[in-house]
Amino acid sequence: LSLWLINGEACQGLSPLDRGLAYGDGLFETLAIIRGRISLWDLHLQRLALGCDRLGLSCPDAGLLHCEVQSLSGQETGVAKIILTRGQGAVGYLADPQQAPTRLVGFRTHPQLPPAREIAPIRARICQTRLAIQPRLAGIKHLNRLEQVLARQEWTDPSIGEGLMLDSEGFLVEGISSNLFLLEGERLITPLLDRCGVAGTLRRLVMTLAPQLGLEVVEERLLPERALQAEALGVCNALTGLSPLASLDSTDFKPSRHFTQLTALVWDAAFQ
Amino acid sequence: LSLWLINGEACQGLSPLDRGLAYGDGLFETLAIIRGRISLWDLHLQRLALGCDRLGLSCPDAGLLHCEVQSLSGQETGVAKIILTRGQGAVGYLADPQQAPTRLVGFRTHPQLPPAREIAPIRARICQTRLAIQPRLAGIKHLNRLEQVLARQEWTDPSIGEGLMLDSEGFLVEGISSNLFLLEGERLITPLLDRCGVAGTLRRLVMTLAPQLGLEVVEERLLPERALQAEALGVCNALTGLSPLASLDSTDFKPSRHFTQLTALVWDAAFQ
Repeated sequence: LSLWLINGEACQGLSPLDRGLAYGDGLFETLAIIRGRISLWDLHLQRLALGCDRLGLSCPDAGLLHCEVQSLSGQETGVAKIILTRGQGAVGYLADPQQAPTRLVGFRTHPQLPPAREIAPIRARICQTRLAIQPRLAGIKHLNRLEQVLARQEWTDPSIGEGLMLDSEGFLVEGISSNLFLLEGERLITPLLDRCGVAGTLRRLVMTLAPQLGLEVVEERLLPERALQAEALGVCNALTGLSPLASLDSTDFKPSRHFTQLTALVWDAAFQ
Repeated sequence: LSLWLINGEACQGLSPLDRGLAYGDGLFETLAIIRGRISLWDLHLQRLALGCDRLGLSCPDAGLLHCEVQSLSGQETGVAKIILTRGQGAVGYLADPQQAPTRLVGFRTHPQLPPAREIAPIRARICQTRLAIQPRLAGIKHLNRLEQVLARQEWTDPSIGEGLMLDSEGFLVEGISSNLFLLEGERLITPLLDRCGVAGTLRRLVMTLAPQLGLEVVEERLLPERALQAEALGVCNALTGLSPLASLDSTDFKPSRHFTQLTALVWDAAFQ
C-alpha cells in the first residue's frame, strides 16, 4: 500500500523537470503515524520550517500538510513522508522566485510501527564514508543524501543495524539514519550538528526528556574513541525510537539503567 | 517543447518513490544537440560510466541512450538531458541490488544553441557559498546540487554571467555551472577536481586541444588571488563553449590572443 498526493492531487507522477529530482533542491520529513496520530508533528514542522528558511523555500501551511497526511493515513498505523521541492525548473541552477514549490505527501502502512517499548540493543559499525563539512546545509533534512547512500553500501550483514559516520575531520556526527547519544556518568552527550548531519526530531525529544531522569544534556564535538570508551551508546530515529547499542565494531556495551529508562520515556512520548 | 522518455516510454511522470528524488541517488548529463548531432557524446558517456562506477549503478547501454536521445531530437538543435537514478526505493538508504535503474531522457529546443563562434567575454563573481570537500563524489555529475543552487541565489544582476566557487578550505574549484581556466604565459591552468567539483566535458576538450596552440595544460590547487593575477581567465560549459572572463569581481581582464584562438578551436570541435 503506497499512496501519494502531489500538490493535493492523487499522484500522476512527478515531472522530470522538478528541481527535487534535478538538483535535490528540497527537503523531506519521515513521520511515524500511530493509529492515525502523527508522532512529533510540531518537531517535524519546526525542522521543515528551518529547512525552508535555509533554502529560501516558502513553507506550506501546517494545517494543509496535516490534513493531507491524515487524508491518506485515516486511522491506520504506518509511515508518512512529506517531500517539498522548489518546483519545476527553469533550466539551470537559477530558480524562478515565482515558481510554486512541489509538495508531495505519501503514506504506507508499516508493520514495524510502533516499535516495541523495550527496544532491543543493536549492533553498529563505524563507516568509512565521511560526511563533508557544509555548515549551510547542516541540521536540515534536505534531499542531497548520496553520502548516506554510499555509507549504507558498505555492509550487507543484516545483524548490523546501523553505521556511524564521521565528518571529514574525523569527528563523530550521527548514524546513517539516526542521531547518536553517549552516556558518561550522569551526562548524556550528543555530537554538535553545526557543520553537517541532520538534527533529528527524536534527538530533540531525547534532549528534552533526559533532564527528567537527572541527566545533563551536552552537545560536543566528539572523536570516535570517546564513543568506544563511553558507558553506553544509543541511536535514535523517528520510526524506531531510542535504541541502545549492543556493540560498536568490536567493542561491546552492557545494558545501562539510564538508557533503559530513557528509551521507555521517549517511547511513551513518541509512540503511545 | 519538452519531451521525456522514462525507461523508454513517453513520460507518465516519475514515481515519488524514485531514489533520484528521495536522495539525489543518481547522475545526469546535459548534452548540446546540433542539427541532430550529439556534441561530445564520447566524453559525456565516459563521465556517466565513471559516475556509475563510483555510485555502484549499472550503466545503460550506450547505443540505447544514443537512440533515445535521437528519437526525441530528430534533426533539431537543442539540449538533451539524461538522468539516471538507482530506481524506486526500498524504504531507507539501503538499495535493493536487484532494483533496475530509472533512465530518463529529455529534449528541448534551445534558442542559444549553438553559441556564437566568437564568444563574448562575461562578468563573473566569487561566491560566498563554499563547496564541501567530498572526494567520493568529486568529478562526477551526481544529482546532489544544493550547493550550486545556494550559490546561484547570491546575485540577481543579469550582467553577471557566472559565479566562481571555492572549496571549504578556500581553494578555487569551478564555476557554478562551468569549469575554470587561467592563463599564465604559455601555461593553461585549471583547478584540481580530486576533492570536489564536476569534471566537465568541455574542460576535457579544452585540455585536449590546448597543446595544439603551444599551451601547456596543468591541474593545480589554486587560491583566488592566483586567478585575480592571471593574464586571462575563461569558463567553459558543454552548452556555452569556452567563454573568456571580462572581469572577476572588481578586477578587469584584457582580451587574450590565446583565449580567442582556443575558444574558436573548441567551438569548431564541439558545435560545428
